[in-house]
Amino acid sequence: MAVVRTERPIITLTSDFGWQDNYVALMKAVIAGINPASVTIDITHDIPSFGIKAAAYVLESSYRYFPSGAIHLAVVDPGVGIERRPLLIETLNHFFIGPDNGLFSFLDPTEIVGVYQLNKKKYHLKIVSRTFHGRDIFAPAAAYLSLGIIPQELGTSVRHPTWSESFLVKKIGNKVIGELIYIDKFGNLVSSIRESDLPLRRFTVYLNRTKIGPLSGTFGDLAEGKALAYINSAGYLEIGVREASAAEKFDIDYEKGAKILIAPE
Amino acid sequence: MAVVRTERPIITLTSDFGWQDNYVALMKAVIAGINPASVTIDITHDIPSFGIKAAAYVLESSYRYFPSGAIHLAVVDPGVGIERRPLLIETLNHFFIGPDNGLFSFLDPTEIVGVYQLNKKKYHLKIVSRTFHGRDIFAPAAAYLSLGIIPQELGTSVRHPTWSESFLVKKIGNKVIGELIYIDKFGNLVSSIRESDLPLRRFTVYLNRTKIGPLSGTFGDLAEGKALAYINSAGYLEIGVREASAAEKFDIDYEKGAKILIAPE
Amino acid sequence: MAVVRTERPIITLTSDFGWQDNYVALMKAVIAGINPASVTIDITHDIPSFGIKAAAYVLESSYRYFPSGAIHLAVVDPGVGIERRPLLIETLNHFFIGPDNGLFSFLDPTEIVGVYQLNKKKYHLKIVSRTFHGRDIFAPAAAYLSLGIIPQELGTSVRHPTWSESFLVKKIGNKVIGELIYIDKFGNLVSSIRESDLPLRRFTVYLNRTKIGPLSGTFGDLAEGKALAYINSAGYLEIGVREASAAEKFDIDYEKGAKILIAPE
Repeated sequence: MAVVRTERPIITLTSDFGWQDNYVALMKAVIAGINPASVTIDITHDIPSFGIKAAAYVLESSYRYFPSGAIHLAVVDPGVGIERRPLLIETLNHFFIGPDNGLFSFLDPTEIVGVYQLNKKKYHLKIVSRTFHGRDIFAPAAAYLSLGIIPQELGTSVRHPTWSESFLVKKIGNKVIGELIYIDKFGNLVSSIRESDLPLRRFTVYLNRTKIGPLSGTFGDLAEGKALAYINSAGYLEIGVREASAAEKFDIDYEKGAKILIAPE
Repeated sequence: MAVVRTERPIITLTSDFGWQDNYVALMKAVIAGINPASVTIDITHDIPSFGIKAAAYVLESSYRYFPSGAIHLAVVDPGVGIERRPLLIETLNHFFIGPDNGLFSFLDPTEIVGVYQLNKKKYHLKIVSRTFHGRDIFAPAAAYLSLGIIPQELGTSVRHPTWSESFLVKKIGNKVIGELIYIDKFGNLVSSIRESDLPLRRFTVYLNRTKIGPLSGTFGDLAEGKALAYINSAGYLEIGVREASAAEKFDIDYEKGAKILIAPE
Repeated sequence: MAVVRTERPIITLTSDFGWQDNYVALMKAVIAGINPASVTIDITHDIPSFGIKAAAYVLESSYRYFPSGAIHLAVVDPGVGIERRPLLIETLNHFFIGPDNGLFSFLDPTEIVGVYQLNKKKYHLKIVSRTFHGRDIFAPAAAYLSLGIIPQELGTSVRHPTWSESFLVKKIGNKVIGELIYIDKFGNLVSSIRESDLPLRRFTVYLNRTKIGPLSGTFGDLAEGKALAYINSAGYLEIGVREASAAEKFDIDYEKGAKILIAPE
């Protein structure tokens, strides 16, 4: 069971709010008001709109690096105007707070201790003009949790949260097929294929119908402008172009998506 | 009278400095040097250049969410090269520090306890090569205030600070006329009209000469690309377009501004 | 010898990682896990790619404002795929951690107490899938240092770190010639020439072959769109255009660079 460290509990923030407006600051204001000793750390606020997979990737590749007991608040909601249940998920070492839209489906079910709907108004913000879940429900929940309020106090148990396969990886014969899950600021394309999904024998990586080549070690040995496939620092197969953007070179964006195929040489 | 909480006092930062340069970090450096126990929270540093109204909106819709005693430092100065008096405004629950250019005119005069010019050199930064008020005067003032130094010690009382109507709202007959005060990152247009300014009877919202329609509840019931008017999470009438930018659709920016009109149906 | 203040030690972060991805958050996660009492302050993460001079300028104009004992972690690496030694430099009042690529050459050699290669695996991150020095080596080093672990414990002494002249300033006869070292978000052009490099007699500033004029006091007395040279808040000669971008007006970017010349009137 996750336990919140009480001296300087960490609350991480992930959203598609951007940095221009005051939405992130309002969440921090609410958190600081409830638990002044908590520390908030921004993971990112540049999740693309409707980017549930991108948010899942960012969270999945980040949360383990935070100390045990960390509370991860994430707001990315593709259902404009559609009310999602506010959820708290407790795992063996971490807490996750956000909308019930499948965002946390990357979590290992065997590590999940409990799932709660944050429906106790007592722990919602009082000064609400119009509901902004991040500020009015998620931020107070994270702050109260960091104070030591137990999950069962913040909400009632939920049996069937929305769950979807976050990162699709199919194995067909001796091929592995993955999908685009993230585009980083350099235009590198992160696939859903992890190191552990790779075949033992030599293979070739394809991006849609384009042959990229075998798995590479570093960028160093490569001509500028040429694409290569490698395992990124989060352990995922990524396709990049030295000193250029793979997304631009191959004309790929989130809407179009991409298929990443691994086939024997 | 506002009292600074002493254990982990909060200093918020609002500016048009952007995130690229080191200006924000220098303010935080100075603050941390004077009061290591203080906590700085960025509200935003993406206020548009010369955006006094935008900054006022962001501050007005943010400061109440911070705990009592919070110190709000804001630097937005449209008068390039014009020296503005550095001010400290004390209200019943909060402190505001920034240039004397009308930025804080949104404050309720009945809540203001005192206004001070930050002219005590003893509390300015010593290592000054060329004056950068945010770093050399405002940041130290905020930090000393957070240490418990009283306002009267930091400066002398000011009788007539610059004051301007932050957000214009006119009521002419049964019409309400407001102005554009903020454009958020989605291109939503925030007007100066608040929920309390709205007539009780059914009405229609116009943006310049374009009919937007009656007040809507959510985006959910709307066709993509269609505009609607609604009360935003800060309590202001806002015009948005589902999954698109209203600013783009109606070709509106800060320089052009916009008139928002409310008329009976 | 620099001493880390133990109660709330400050670790600053400078990089070319940008704000979109989770790289910065991962460094903060690692730091918070090792020393929860430390405070991280972002200087910037918008250093241009391969921008060693820009990073040096940002650090040089920032670090003195931080309290004594502050630890400055900087990651800007132009050598894609080239392994650089991870370094720790101890000066009389500060610590600097980053790659051995000349980034810290702006430091006064007489203030340097020691230079160490961070090669003690005991103080590297354990969960490494693929090396990301910022997260796996620099962040833990900064955090352990902030806990009071001495530099000699973190690495072995290095005799000849990479050193290059950070900011070139030549004096030829009665002329002073500098180079472009930074472009700020307004498009102002920062030169390598400092206030102390200026001649005592009246002089004229040239940008490449364009005459800018004598040294100015403020923007205030200038027509919109006209360029002027002035000493910026960091003490460097800068060329700006009132309410416009000098970089755009003179078609200058980092790749092209620029020569700034000072000649007697």
